[in-house]
Amino acid sequence: MYRSHTCGELRLEDVNKEVTLSGWVQKVRNLGGMTFIDLRDRYGITQLVLDVESRKDLSEKARKLGREYVIQVTGKVAERSNKNTKIPTGDIEILVDAFELLNVSELPPFTIEDETDGGDELRMKYRYLDLRRNPVRKNLELRHKLGFEVRNFLNQQNFIETETPVLIKSTPEGARDFIVPSRMNQGEFYALPQSPQVFKQLLMVAGFDRYFQIVKCFRDEDLRADRQPEFTQIDCEMAFVEQQDVLSTFEGMTKHLFKVIKDVEFDYDFPQMPFDEAMKYYGSDKPDIRFDMKFVEMKEMMEGCGFKVFEDAEYVGGICAEGCASYTRKELDKLTDFVRKPQIGAQGLVYVKYNTDGTFKSSVDKFFDEAALMNWAEKFDAKPGDLLLILAGAKAKTQNALCELRLEMGARLGLRDKNKFAPLWVVDFPLLEWDEESERYHAMHHPFTSPKKEDFEMLDAEPGKVRANAYDLVINGVEIGGGSIRIHDDELQHKMFQLLGFTEEEAESQFGFLMNAFKYGAPPHGGVAFGFDRLVSLFAGIDSIRDVIAFPKNNSGRDVMIDSPSPIAKDQLDELSISLKEIRK
Amino acid sequence: MYRSHTCGELRLEDVNKEVTLSGWVQKVRNLGGMTFIDLRDRYGITQLVLDVESRKDLSEKARKLGREYVIQVTGKVAERSNKNTKIPTGDIEILVDAFELLNVSELPPFTIEDETDGGDELRMKYRYLDLRRNPVRKNLELRHKLGFEVRNFLNQQNFIETETPVLIKSTPEGARDFIVPSRMNQGEFYALPQSPQVFKQLLMVAGFDRYFQIVKCFRDEDLRADRQPEFTQIDCEMAFVEQQDVLSTFEGMTKHLFKVIKDVEFDYDFPQMPFDEAMKYYGSDKPDIRFDMKFVEMKEMMEGCGFKVFEDAEYVGGICAEGCASYTRKELDKLTDFVRKPQIGAQGLVYVKYNTDGTFKSSVDKFFDEAALMNWAEKFDAKPGDLLLILAGAKAKTQNALCELRLEMGARLGLRDKNKFAPLWVVDFPLLEWDEESERYHAMHHPFTSPKKEDFEMLDAEPGKVRANAYDLVINGVEIGGGSIRIHDDELQHKMFQLLGFTEEEAESQFGFLMNAFKYGAPPHGGVAFGFDRLVSLFAGIDSIRDVIAFPKNNSGRDVMIDSPSPIAKDQLDELSISLKEIRK
Repeated sequence: MYRSHTCGELRLEDVNKEVTLSGWVQKVRNLGGMTFIDLRDRYGITQLVLDVESRKDLSEKARKLGREYVIQVTGKVAERSNKNTKIPTGDIEILVDAFELLNVSELPPFTIEDETDGGDELRMKYRYLDLRRNPVRKNLELRHKLGFEVRNFLNQQNFIETETPVLIKSTPEGARDFIVPSRMNQGEFYALPQSPQVFKQLLMVAGFDRYFQIVKCFRDEDLRADRQPEFTQIDCEMAFVEQQDVLSTFEGMTKHLFKVIKDVEFDYDFPQMPFDEAMKYYGSDKPDIRFDMKFVEMKEMMEGCGFKVFEDAEYVGGICAEGCASYTRKELDKLTDFVRKPQIGAQGLVYVKYNTDGTFKSSVDKFFDEAALMNWAEKFDAKPGDLLLILAGAKAKTQNALCELRLEMGARLGLRDKNKFAPLWVVDFPLLEWDEESERYHAMHHPFTSPKKEDFEMLDAEPGKVRANAYDLVINGVEIGGGSIRIHDDELQHKMFQLLGFTEEEAESQFGFLMNAFKYGAPPHGGVAFGFDRLVSLFAGIDSIRDVIAFPKNNSGRDVMIDSPSPIAKDQLDELSISLKEIRK
Repeated sequence: MYRSHTCGELRLEDVNKEVTLSGWVQKVRNLGGMTFIDLRDRYGITQLVLDVESRKDLSEKARKLGREYVIQVTGKVAERSNKNTKIPTGDIEILVDAFELLNVSELPPFTIEDETDGGDELRMKYRYLDLRRNPVRKNLELRHKLGFEVRNFLNQQNFIETETPVLIKSTPEGARDFIVPSRMNQGEFYALPQSPQVFKQLLMVAGFDRYFQIVKCFRDEDLRADRQPEFTQIDCEMAFVEQQDVLSTFEGMTKHLFKVIKDVEFDYDFPQMPFDEAMKYYGSDKPDIRFDMKFVEMKEMMEGCGFKVFEDAEYVGGICAEGCASYTRKELDKLTDFVRKPQIGAQGLVYVKYNTDGTFKSSVDKFFDEAALMNWAEKFDAKPGDLLLILAGAKAKTQNALCELRLEMGARLGLRDKNKFAPLWVVDFPLLEWDEESERYHAMHHPFTSPKKEDFEMLDAEPGKVRANAYDLVINGVEIGGGSIRIHDDELQHKMFQLLGFTEEEAESQFGFLMNAFKYGAPPHGGVAFGFDRLVSLFAGIDSIRDVIAFPKNNSGRDVMIDSPSPIAKDQLDELSISLKEIRK
């Protein structure tokens, strides 16, 4: 037995027990003939005391100890005179009677402490050491707990966790598929799934009724900070449901997770906000509603105002930043710089200070008099002391810039508290979106998403206006999950393919297999998929999903720890009947 | 709302309730102006009654119904006069007031019933219909339940479920790796893991203490009936443990699963049988100990017996089949044919009937007199009425053939009851096995498996005799899991590589990465991996793992349902900078 207790469990009531502990040496201090060692394992830290003065054997061994050495000690639990109230074991210490050196350690390339001196790259390379640090390990413990509670909840709701294949088929649409050459079927390839979409719909055809899976998915695309080539989804599907059934079920799951993991209770139904409204008031399909600061549209009231920038703009709109009228010139310049950043792309920023004394000061005083500005202030419901921030330009771009500005102001005003959670469903997404480049409609969600019944009549004349039975769960401005009610009617599905510009042959070659399955009594069904990595990040209160993945890849899709991907021996390629072309560098 | 209840939940106490059900039409019968429909969903079957005589609207719709049509009905629950005691809903029926046709179905290619008329290939192709059948779906429900209970148990034991990467690195040893070309890192490849072995050991270095994962693994090799290119493991690792700690923990898990899922309790510790003993008495490292019928070795007593077949053989051994002395000539011929099958490969079979009247009749009466045979009978502990079956030849081959014969006799005698479970740990595996072809030792488990301390001294002189801290869990003759205590000592690890014939360079290039991690305070650790597919099969009482996988591949690694693997468009290969060679057919 390497240990009788972990380094996290001994308390005052254990005093005088003979115990054996094992763990890593966190710190060694020598003081008045005694050596104090902080011994660490996953469960905590316990202080060891070695009386090296009177015990020659201990002193010799103790001298050799370095950081991260692995030792096993036996001794008696004693009450500490100098208690440490910061750790749960701080009331006791172990008077060491004997110890064994289990393993040595080279000096780690960075300190294994909550605040480390290691840079990102170094910590990725030595990920196994970074994972020893409390904050990193706690993220992974949280991940375990979240997965466990998701399963608990869904199991209780009669969902069957069903594994779908990882080696599937590449489709002509699968431009971002990872592919896998087959040895047994030379010249042919599997693909890794971007999602188990087809299989979960097949499970509904199979009568599984309620399916879920916490499953790895894969996408071979340029990576942004918040993307990984392999990521994890909570993938779910239900039969015989309408949209509200799906929303209720997964609102229930979300509430369960918040309750058991964060002790946060929502005693209300999550708001359901139509896509149009989200765009109008927040300029985003994933609004952060922890704070209000809704957009106010000003285009109409600017007709004939004489200020060309506003008159010519497709869209004029602004937000009211409470209590910010005191912003200095410098601060306002910074905001202007912010909205002009290339990734935000506004031309400039108009501000109106509604001073506490009731006067106005704006960047457009040349064009608008006090009365006009008062009129604006009323439109914004502004009070003296508030600051109006206004953008103008092309609609989509300007709404997006205003959205970023709103989030920035929310952050400055401390309205985006990581311990506050504001979930909502965004619903009524458009079924289609027009793609300028290919000059045709694309499915906004995917081609199996069903249109709203009440919009059927517009399918021919105004397909762009048709809304879908599609929905996203958004929390604190982050899209946590999304899904839709699927089409289960053959005729409607063919109509949909037509709208998307597929010929019968194209539809058949790309989706024929699923369509064929649907001929054998497909039930009405729909589902949802949650980004598990993102969900864990949200609960952990951190921004990057990389920090909640045990062994993540970097922005180039490389695992710098194991140095992968890597070249492969020629005979291995030969066996697969593939060869490498000259590489374009 | 598509339904107020499922097709499996209504009972007598629900009589007179207005209900709505949805499901598939299992069967339609017309009888005296009434139409009876069996409506099926995952939860059960409910009988619907349509009074088509008096309800024109119903009759019209009912005429159109075919097998597997999807309908929604509303009606009143009524007590049945003619109760069906075979199904839980058999006391009631629904007097249908209205129904909606939700979807039609073409005639399925085979019947969706417990006993189907569909052949294997057809059922694989239409797997989504095969999954509608009760016995198939129940296997998958069992799989869900087993996974859920594994997680429950391990969570309670402080294990953290941690996802390890699917896109990893190919090693020179990874001849059976699936590889994945990278788009972002052209000319380089990921590999799919054959197991998360390296990562779970890294998690121990990282101080995770107790790790598990239910995880897909991949092996690109010729498939036997009981193999799949992707399979699922329950993968576990623990730090600061000795062999007995691991065995106790996972014996606990196994007992938990049997208790909650099969209501089977084991009130004893699983036997631990040394590898040598398993080979000696059962000719196998995975003995089926549901029945005794141990091997009796006869080589010694045959010295100078005059029967050349026995005298020349490296090994002579047999089993005693209780009560089989009455076997006819024909039955004995069949057994001889059985052991002569190429995959078993014995030369012939010697039998000795110990007749109920105390006389003997054997196939070697020419060589041995009654006294000699009586001597054998005593050695076998045989009673009148028993049959001795004896094989002779090269040791390994003959032990293996005798093992097969023992299993065959066990089956004939009804001693291999699928509802009886006999688990054991096989322990003390040899550390190394000699490979004739390469004329060197191979690691029997893997190169990180630790030798037993008490055998250290033999490492140099007699490495083939050194036993490992390695163990398998065997139930009913099936290897359910296996693992080992790993080496955590740098020096010992290098010694091991030496024994395996690696140069320092080879060891460095193949295992350097993990060895490097081990320099930073690797704790003592060990683990185990269970074949999840096989575990589910065992619990389901079926032989093939294919039947417990939702979407399995066939013996050629093909998914015949989605027709994968498949050729890939040239431009997709171009993007990856790979090209196809001419295929060797």
